[in-house]
Amino acid sequence: MTLAIQTDDIRAAAARLAGIAHRTPVVTSTSADALTGAKLFFKCENLQRMGAFKFRGAYNSLAQFSADQRRAGVVSFSSGNHAQAIALSARLLGVPATIVMPSDAPQMKIDATRGYGAEVKLFDRYTEDREAIGRKLADERGMTLIPPFDHPHVMAGQGTAALELLEDVGALDVMLVCVGGGGLISGCAVATKHSLPQCAVIGVEPEAGNDVQLSFRSGAIVHIDVPKTIADGAQTQQPGRFTFPVIQALVDDVLTVDDAQLVSTMRFFAERMKMVVEPTGCLAAAAALQRVLDLRGKRVGVIVSGGNIDITRYGALLSAA
Amino acid sequence: MTLAIQTDDIRAAAARLAGIAHRTPVVTSTSADALTGAKLFFKCENLQRMGAFKFRGAYNSLAQFSADQRRAGVVSFSSGNHAQAIALSARLLGVPATIVMPSDAPQMKIDATRGYGAEVKLFDRYTEDREAIGRKLADERGMTLIPPFDHPHVMAGQGTAALELLEDVGALDVMLVCVGGGGLISGCAVATKHSLPQCAVIGVEPEAGNDVQLSFRSGAIVHIDVPKTIADGAQTQQPGRFTFPVIQALVDDVLTVDDAQLVSTMRFFAERMKMVVEPTGCLAAAAALQRVLDLRGKRVGVIVSGGNIDITRYGALLSAA
Repeated sequence: MTLAIQTDDIRAAAARLAGIAHRTPVVTSTSADALTGAKLFFKCENLQRMGAFKFRGAYNSLAQFSADQRRAGVVSFSSGNHAQAIALSARLLGVPATIVMPSDAPQMKIDATRGYGAEVKLFDRYTEDREAIGRKLADERGMTLIPPFDHPHVMAGQGTAALELLEDVGALDVMLVCVGGGGLISGCAVATKHSLPQCAVIGVEPEAGNDVQLSFRSGAIVHIDVPKTIADGAQTQQPGRFTFPVIQALVDDVLTVDDAQLVSTMRFFAERMKMVVEPTGCLAAAAALQRVLDLRGKRVGVIVSGGNIDITRYGALLSAA
Repeated sequence: MTLAIQTDDIRAAAARLAGIAHRTPVVTSTSADALTGAKLFFKCENLQRMGAFKFRGAYNSLAQFSADQRRAGVVSFSSGNHAQAIALSARLLGVPATIVMPSDAPQMKIDATRGYGAEVKLFDRYTEDREAIGRKLADERGMTLIPPFDHPHVMAGQGTAALELLEDVGALDVMLVCVGGGGLISGCAVATKHSLPQCAVIGVEPEAGNDVQLSFRSGAIVHIDVPKTIADGAQTQQPGRFTFPVIQALVDDVLTVDDAQLVSTMRFFAERMKMVVEPTGCLAAAAALQRVLDLRGKRVGVIVSGGNIDITRYGALLSAA
């Protein structure tokens, strides 16, 4: 079976993103290395434009629109980083954007999305289906729908994070990647396994939202209820039809961490590395720093996926621990 | 009158620190520029070794010890970043270190100082005089006392922060520097005015602890009570006998910001730049971001002096705002 994306798709995405996405820094920490016995390389997508890796996939998708698609515009549904990623990419490319967001989304996120020039269409998340609203808008207005993860262009864009990391630090034994719907890990797995077939690509999910772990281990897509976790970027209910086959083919394992481990990791980032990382962005690092797996003696890539969190909420999480 | 340090002292310090101190990154922020109408360059000393610029001055001092001084060791008094800076520098240079700290200092700081291998001598800050204890120890044991700011080698080391910033970004119109006892700003002023006499060097103090502003404006050292401010690195009571003449000769003005402005700035760093900055480290940036002075159209250097703060306390400050 042919996977939805190949290495060339990621290389092409990297060319589209050159000079537009930030080439985010890779940082190291002697404290983190001492704690794990490994050599950890943190790829800081919290320092990406709009604060998360999502910009990569969104821009890579919109940059491939035809002239007609650009005129008609893009529609997307998201309460999180994907919304802002689409809105910013659309502004940069001069494409009209409509984002379908729940009416109870944080005002800050609604404002930020509007601030990028997108039209925000609110819906009631308890009585309406965001995907149906998005598809209806797309049909009515001839707009192109770009979903948050299950799209080859999105997946290829996200894979450029791992590509850059490997270009910067060379061979790795393990690549740790957070998992929501699988857009990031599928892109990163393709980028990694192409040049380093021996490198273990390991996904990390919130314990309460282990839809991908269940799917991966059973060999078929498993659907779960909306998970309760502070990792709001990983509250997906199932992997995608494009992402799951890539995960099955190329990912070595999917592990989980709980919310307390995420908070500890968030504190570690703040205290020792002076970095703000959102809970979802702590998933991959938590597997290393909380010693969910033994990494002694290994060279390990850790994708830090984002840094967008309401600062009052962030402060409360840090001070409650 | 000859100032305590010259440009050559800072260049010599830079040579001593090369490959040992981090050459910290200079970061920019489109949000910060939009807010101020200026082009701001943040020199990130919160990412320095042990989390603050203090490492520069401490290492520069200890690296100039004679063989006898190295054998006998160093003594210092500090409850803050200088203690850890001396302890780390001493470990790197194989010099025994004794740090005099108040018995009610945060356990984390005491542990960190001991963790670097220093002997910690506790004293009662309400009944004992730390400086007298330090001098007595120095006399009894033949150790060399390195004070937190009022020492030419310390001042020269701190100046390397501005030197690097100017090397990285070129000419600036304004250099904003936080002020405690004046070690950082005196070094930075010498480094800046030598190559850029037209660049305004502006100090920023906490409003409640404006000993240097009062001294600067009156032309003589003014002593104040221990100030109540969250900027614990700037709770000095007067400028030093070495630092003050440099400030008088080379600094253009000293401004103040209040604690609420520091918290707003700390939130800005967390939210928009994903960086943890301690309250004292926010002083210089607060003068820009809270528009205490008009910087429109200017290229401005901002020294972000440190990132060491108890994370529970940090979270409480962020979530209370």
